[in-house]
Amino acid sequence: MTERKKSGDLRAFFEPRGVAVFGSMREVPGTAFWVIRNMRQFGFSGPVYAINPAPEMYGEVLGARVYSSVRDVSGPVDLAAVITPPSTVLDIVEACAEKGIPAVIVLSEGFAEIGGEGRALQGRLREIAHRTGTRIMGPNTFGVFNSANGLATIPPYTDQERIEKGGVAFCSQTGSIGPHQNPVADWAYPISKMCDVGNKCDVDEADLLDYLAEDGETRVAALHLEDIRDAGRFLRAARKLTARKPLVVLKTGRSEGGARAAYSHTGSLSASDRIVDAALRQAGALRVETWQELWEVPKTLVYQPLPAGNRFAVITFTGGQGVIAADAAEAAGLELARFSSGTLERLARISPRLDGNPVDIGPVMSDSRSQSSDNPFSVLEDTVPAVLEDGNVDCLTISFYSGKQIVSIHPMIVEMLDRLTRDTPKTVNLWIYGTSTSAMEDLARRLQACGLPAYFDLDMAVKSLGHAARVGEHLRRPVLNSG
Amino acid sequence: MTERKKSGDLRAFFEPRGVAVFGSMREVPGTAFWVIRNMRQFGFSGPVYAINPAPEMYGEVLGARVYSSVRDVSGPVDLAAVITPPSTVLDIVEACAEKGIPAVIVLSEGFAEIGGEGRALQGRLREIAHRTGTRIMGPNTFGVFNSANGLATIPPYTDQERIEKGGVAFCSQTGSIGPHQNPVADWAYPISKMCDVGNKCDVDEADLLDYLAEDGETRVAALHLEDIRDAGRFLRAARKLTARKPLVVLKTGRSEGGARAAYSHTGSLSASDRIVDAALRQAGALRVETWQELWEVPKTLVYQPLPAGNRFAVITFTGGQGVIAADAAEAAGLELARFSSGTLERLARISPRLDGNPVDIGPVMSDSRSQSSDNPFSVLEDTVPAVLEDGNVDCLTISFYSGKQIVSIHPMIVEMLDRLTRDTPKTVNLWIYGTSTSAMEDLARRLQACGLPAYFDLDMAVKSLGHAARVGEHLRRPVLNSG
Repeated sequence: MTERKKSGDLRAFFEPRGVAVFGSMREVPGTAFWVIRNMRQFGFSGPVYAINPAPEMYGEVLGARVYSSVRDVSGPVDLAAVITPPSTVLDIVEACAEKGIPAVIVLSEGFAEIGGEGRALQGRLREIAHRTGTRIMGPNTFGVFNSANGLATIPPYTDQERIEKGGVAFCSQTGSIGPHQNPVADWAYPISKMCDVGNKCDVDEADLLDYLAEDGETRVAALHLEDIRDAGRFLRAARKLTARKPLVVLKTGRSEGGARAAYSHTGSLSASDRIVDAALRQAGALRVETWQELWEVPKTLVYQPLPAGNRFAVITFTGGQGVIAADAAEAAGLELARFSSGTLERLARISPRLDGNPVDIGPVMSDSRSQSSDNPFSVLEDTVPAVLEDGNVDCLTISFYSGKQIVSIHPMIVEMLDRLTRDTPKTVNLWIYGTSTSAMEDLARRLQACGLPAYFDLDMAVKSLGHAARVGEHLRRPVLNSG
Repeated sequence: MTERKKSGDLRAFFEPRGVAVFGSMREVPGTAFWVIRNMRQFGFSGPVYAINPAPEMYGEVLGARVYSSVRDVSGPVDLAAVITPPSTVLDIVEACAEKGIPAVIVLSEGFAEIGGEGRALQGRLREIAHRTGTRIMGPNTFGVFNSANGLATIPPYTDQERIEKGGVAFCSQTGSIGPHQNPVADWAYPISKMCDVGNKCDVDEADLLDYLAEDGETRVAALHLEDIRDAGRFLRAARKLTARKPLVVLKTGRSEGGARAAYSHTGSLSASDRIVDAALRQAGALRVETWQELWEVPKTLVYQPLPAGNRFAVITFTGGQGVIAADAAEAAGLELARFSSGTLERLARISPRLDGNPVDIGPVMSDSRSQSSDNPFSVLEDTVPAVLEDGNVDCLTISFYSGKQIVSIHPMIVEMLDRLTRDTPKTVNLWIYGTSTSAMEDLARRLQACGLPAYFDLDMAVKSLGHAARVGEHLRRPVLNSG
């Protein structure tokens, strides 16, 4: 095998000066035309060159000429996206390499995942990468998305435009991770990069981690994996990344049936799940168990400081919610904080009904129902600081209701919660429940715009704090061997 | 202790001929006025009598007179809802009992949950119930909701009106279960009854189970509990219910901290969690672990036949989803079905890419992209029957995408999925993912209107099938001792 490229060279995939897109310019989803259209929709403003051997068939594409060959393009091209029949891909990639294009994404399907001939073809792609130094992502991928510059190499139809710029990189080896498959806007996921490494003929998860470790926009990496190409390289890259930022990993194929299914669709054989588990722990990665967790856990990590310990407090509107949160805390490896006597006195001064953790403010709100106040949640003004200033508390979940009737006071609620939590070094997140999903989403989006992570599932909110506490512990550990 | 009432006598709580509501008629949430307003909003059309000692202060309430005493009401009154200061509650309840009202809900707070005096007051309420035979629900409760007749005794503001009539009874001892706290309409939960037994001075979870076992509208009972008043009665009632319909239980206070929190807010002491676990299993109840599961698991139970076994199949749009589903299946106690050779041949005739379970139809949809078809999902027309007709398959999850661009073809998609699954004795549910939560919710609502349970979390969809398989097993077991 030829020598592997040094790390850090994925920049051209995410920050190209110019992009060449190869394939059909028919105006339907799944084509090169649609890749260009999506790129424009997401706001990529750099030069994009449409390449097709029969330019006369198309005239212009979105106002730009069609080139018959990439050789004719004069401006700098750092990235090529190829969505052409498998039999034509090798020649195109060779031409890109000849032109000195450092990064090629092969979006086309029909390689190792179909076995036989496809597998051989993929081997030759890998060979081109190793021989020429041009890095190849895919095949069988949607490629990349970068919220900072709007770069997207996504062939399918997608109705999303408004993607929250943020600090989480979501990466995978399946297209399911992309902005064309997830309600990233509605759920206000804060995205830096998205990437699907597909069949990994060349670029793999270790390359990605190397890149993300250095990427200034990415503060948390979330990675879905079915197999790990090179355990040694992966663990070195993971250790380097987790020394600086959290890494959340969903490694699927845990079960026998899952491993068999993974083999069948990617041709990849997975290591024993216990080995993967131990290796990830050693590398300081957080292993999550479900697809939902892969999306939800990073929000607390990216928006909030890491907890200094695992002592958990919760403020709720009903006693029942407090009990659920306490159970969730234990399951998440957190400990229910015991308030100091000073805090207990402070709470008792607010109301004798506030007698410990969980802090159930429901009865206090009922007691003061007759009092006139523009803010029915004003009891939080005293309660939140009392809890956050307790030396025995490391992290806090606040439960909050929304319904259509309070959408008009969302700005006031968000101002209050932001003000009460802005200067604390403690980790805070919210559970949003209520009667209207549109109202709940509106509140969640507004809170997250202020850096307050919001969840629609109480157990997930608490679990995320548990993961954050583990990252905090990992980062405080003295580094004995930094690889 | 006086003799307990015989079972079945909760009917007056849910199906009263007339309702008397005691308390302030000020037009603000949290009052008796608001209880009446909510009842009208949910469509309760029976007579509702407003009772307040100072009727001259109010004139009329929603077009009806205010009575100074329940004694003056001439029509039949089967239910009283009381939301007055605790010190006034005993006299009111005595008056109700004197009038022969069989059911009283004490919505007021300020009883056992505040300890001391409140606890003593609650003891006297219980004494009235036992002495007079009038059953008392609460105190410290929102009471009841019945989707069949619109009866609701809910004092807080609620913006929900359109509640799906359905077969699941959601019950709890906290108000968090109510239609004023959950997006039951947006998430299309199929509701028969909702009930919060509150502090359980008299009516408790065993009474509820007795009632729900007989209730023709309820086909699945979902119960959130912090403590069990009388383990023997509860287990007898649970066994009676589970011999006919599924019972899903979230018993919180599992953890030490949770148990302490439960004690602090309801004054109830919980049995060791392991004992609860064993007892629930023995009674044939499904124990779930999170609040989310309590809401989600019943959907598959109520809409679908129970699986004849635990052999699970999955149809997905990407290979990655199939691997996640296979992992989830193992975690849920399901086995990945191995298709018969006949099914494998049938699938291969549809496409050589369909080579087993999980069934990843993504590549087939790509292959046929150039073919013209009004229905991009037409490959399901052959795939779904092939899977459902396999003798090795007991249950199936289908993953389905939605986004704004396909909302217009939702009716066609739903017609297709309904037609393909309507006549199968197998258990089917769906995982809905996609780019727009409003589109996803629209599809889910339409599917559920046809009896196809839809989930936004793949693991939850699969877990629900696992629970359904366990119920099926329980119901097939010969009943040795029916208590």
